[in-house]
Amino acid sequence: MTDLLSKPVRVINVGIEEFDANIRASGGVSQHVQWRPPAPIAAATLRKLMETETARNEANQEALQRLQRAKPVLTGMGVALDTIPGMAKNLFLHAGPPITWDHMCGPMRGAMIGAVLYEGLADTPEAAEEQLASGAYRFAPCHEHATVGPMAGVVSASMPVFIVENQADGNRAYCTQNEGLGKVLRYGAYSDEVVKRLKWMEEVMYPALQKALQASGGIDLKNLIAQALHMGDEVHNRNRAGTSLFLRAITPWLVRTATDLETAASVIDFINGNDHFFLNLSMPACKASLDAARNVEGSSMLVCMARNGTDFGIQLSGTGNAWFTGPALVPDALFFAGYTKDDANPDIGDSAITETAGLGGFAIAAAPAIVQFVGGSAGDAMNYTLEMYEIAVGENGVFQIPALDFRGTPTGIDAVQVVRKGIVPFIDTGVAHKDAGVGQVGAGVVSAPMDPFIKAVEGLA
Amino acid sequence: MTDLLSKPVRVINVGIEEFDANIRASGGVSQHVQWRPPAPIAAATLRKLMETETARNEANQEALQRLQRAKPVLTGMGVALDTIPGMAKNLFLHAGPPITWDHMCGPMRGAMIGAVLYEGLADTPEAAEEQLASGAYRFAPCHEHATVGPMAGVVSASMPVFIVENQADGNRAYCTQNEGLGKVLRYGAYSDEVVKRLKWMEEVMYPALQKALQASGGIDLKNLIAQALHMGDEVHNRNRAGTSLFLRAITPWLVRTATDLETAASVIDFINGNDHFFLNLSMPACKASLDAARNVEGSSMLVCMARNGTDFGIQLSGTGNAWFTGPALVPDALFFAGYTKDDANPDIGDSAITETAGLGGFAIAAAPAIVQFVGGSAGDAMNYTLEMYEIAVGENGVFQIPALDFRGTPTGIDAVQVVRKGIVPFIDTGVAHKDAGVGQVGAGVVSAPMDPFIKAVEGLA
Repeated sequence: MTDLLSKPVRVINVGIEEFDANIRASGGVSQHVQWRPPAPIAAATLRKLMETETARNEANQEALQRLQRAKPVLTGMGVALDTIPGMAKNLFLHAGPPITWDHMCGPMRGAMIGAVLYEGLADTPEAAEEQLASGAYRFAPCHEHATVGPMAGVVSASMPVFIVENQADGNRAYCTQNEGLGKVLRYGAYSDEVVKRLKWMEEVMYPALQKALQASGGIDLKNLIAQALHMGDEVHNRNRAGTSLFLRAITPWLVRTATDLETAASVIDFINGNDHFFLNLSMPACKASLDAARNVEGSSMLVCMARNGTDFGIQLSGTGNAWFTGPALVPDALFFAGYTKDDANPDIGDSAITETAGLGGFAIAAAPAIVQFVGGSAGDAMNYTLEMYEIAVGENGVFQIPALDFRGTPTGIDAVQVVRKGIVPFIDTGVAHKDAGVGQVGAGVVSAPMDPFIKAVEGLA
Repeated sequence: MTDLLSKPVRVINVGIEEFDANIRASGGVSQHVQWRPPAPIAAATLRKLMETETARNEANQEALQRLQRAKPVLTGMGVALDTIPGMAKNLFLHAGPPITWDHMCGPMRGAMIGAVLYEGLADTPEAAEEQLASGAYRFAPCHEHATVGPMAGVVSASMPVFIVENQADGNRAYCTQNEGLGKVLRYGAYSDEVVKRLKWMEEVMYPALQKALQASGGIDLKNLIAQALHMGDEVHNRNRAGTSLFLRAITPWLVRTATDLETAASVIDFINGNDHFFLNLSMPACKASLDAARNVEGSSMLVCMARNGTDFGIQLSGTGNAWFTGPALVPDALFFAGYTKDDANPDIGDSAITETAGLGGFAIAAAPAIVQFVGGSAGDAMNYTLEMYEIAVGENGVFQIPALDFRGTPTGIDAVQVVRKGIVPFIDTGVAHKDAGVGQVGAGVVSAPMDPFIKAVEGLA
């Protein structure tokens, strides 16, 4: 022992990174090994998990296979009321797990106010808020209506939605048209400008895109996503390539079916001005793919990971419609000028459906630009993706990472591995102001909380 | 010595890789170090190079600065005869250094025959060939007329050309519209289908694009190239992102200025169907930038690297209009079904202007897909780019490699470093069939020959 300490100490540090940093700071040599203890779960649950391991692995392979064989195609559009199953005039869909008005965060309340104004059900934000608080309307998660919505994810009866059909299994998913960045409904803004834009999207963009899509015969979203991953997107926080490829696919049809040249040009301008347009196509593509993987008995694979700005909720293939939730965390982000983390709402939106399908944060090695804007390097992006293989059921057969020699992305999150290894999913995200009416204040990354995974694994056991 | 060989031998192998491979094959342990001897140059030249080192480095920094400050903007289009300086009805421009009919390779002869037919100067390929062989027309390198052309690079009087203005220094460069892949003029094909397509490009696409460009006020190509590098292109052999971004930039103007919806749609369809369309914009962008770096006294920085399918030629900033040439090599390539390296013509085209400006093979770490199709890995792509820093004057201030943490691409090739370090430029390229009339047979990579660099350095000294 004396002999050991007489020479310079060389340390292998396992677990807590601060120890490693201190050794280095005092001039020592230390090699850090990332390790976290497994999450605390009951002995009975652990025993059950070990007993069912073989069956669960088989069930997960079945769920993964359904996810992998999915063929999401954008086949058309329709108005929410006529298109989304169970939609009603007094029903407002929202992102994440179920929530009441009392518990809704600022940006979700703001988006609800905006949607009531957009539907013409109230004349002022104050009147809209009073109606919403009085119980005049019903609320339900998008996810329970085959729908997904980014950020607040509010969908009301008159909104046009994309229809994405999983042509392998025949199920469908729905999503509204992306409004752009800044002061927009999904970030909780509800000013006249927001409502006016939504009206233009309903009255001009929707009819033009619908006709173009009908003429096109459908657009293969799986193919576009695969290409976008080769072009620097992870199709959650970066959608420049996806938006470009979608424009290439739709523009000839848009031009050929337009009522006039100016209408076609104005729709192209709108999509052109919004590099996130494709997000509202990548999300329902993932939703349609994952819904086909639901209800495999005994499977611990996630079919949904969604946040309402208050709670973070997940659903497993093997636990039916049950939600497992925990408090949502505040993202690390690059904030717009004048805003800080104090202004940020906790994590919100259904967009984590992309991570659930092996994209977004799981494919971030394909999009190092995202990590760069929160101060990370291309190497960090690579490491985030590599770590996600630890909790994935398999590797994607179609979505690849060029920088990892075109290895398939880590696909299908196994809740049991999350709990066992203490590794939670890594998620890209936009950041909304915590108050209603403000809008987006930044973009960044966040880790899922562990709580919902522990509950889900106990629920499955 | 006896003692050394009594234990297992561990080798550090410097230089020839075959030795390393043999040691490993016999079960030995060997670490290979890449090293090549400097190219053989005369003692007097070496002395002169050493004496002028400081002045040369200053001159190279001046040339690099002019290249870096260039702001190439696509400002419009015109017909070659009215637009390219010194163009004439009986003049046919071609890729690479000067060459006579006798020495032209198959694909260049094929493209010349096609251009004569396209101009209506002959009725049959046989008649065209007879005219060409009889000295009825003049030939000159594109590069000597502020023009660049991919592959055979043949430009004749009636062809429409893009006009790219370097708004930093006011000089211009020109390039024809890209025809697509397969049986096309630039790969030496000259069938009716080829000539008919060129006529459509002149009569339908050119007027539509010209009007759109005028209305747009110009398109900043430096910006598009910088974005394309973040999206998996190196803008030589991969131009999918560049083509997508160009379409996004031009489509709204194209639609607004079109005579009718069908004309607009047909032009969008054509560009949409050809992921190499942007090559004919990245090339003149590089040409306009490099022409501004010409004639810096004493500079050993390349301002041109071009091949005519027979010879590989370079020009230095400090040696005026002199060409230094050597035989062109045959590329390593992925060949289309039914073709092999035996069918391949030696390296051809002005497209190595992209490498000369710090793009193409020099930026291949941004586009690992290209290396993959010749059997390489993403790591190989990274290593090719890293090696090019050894012979570059500097690093680009705008063009970045995401996978190298957004490091600027190696920019400005120093002929002296090429000769000193024995490292030749790495070039991406398409491959033409060696016979006239066939067309493209593959795509791949090639190294520049050393000969022209030795001659250039001796010429400079």
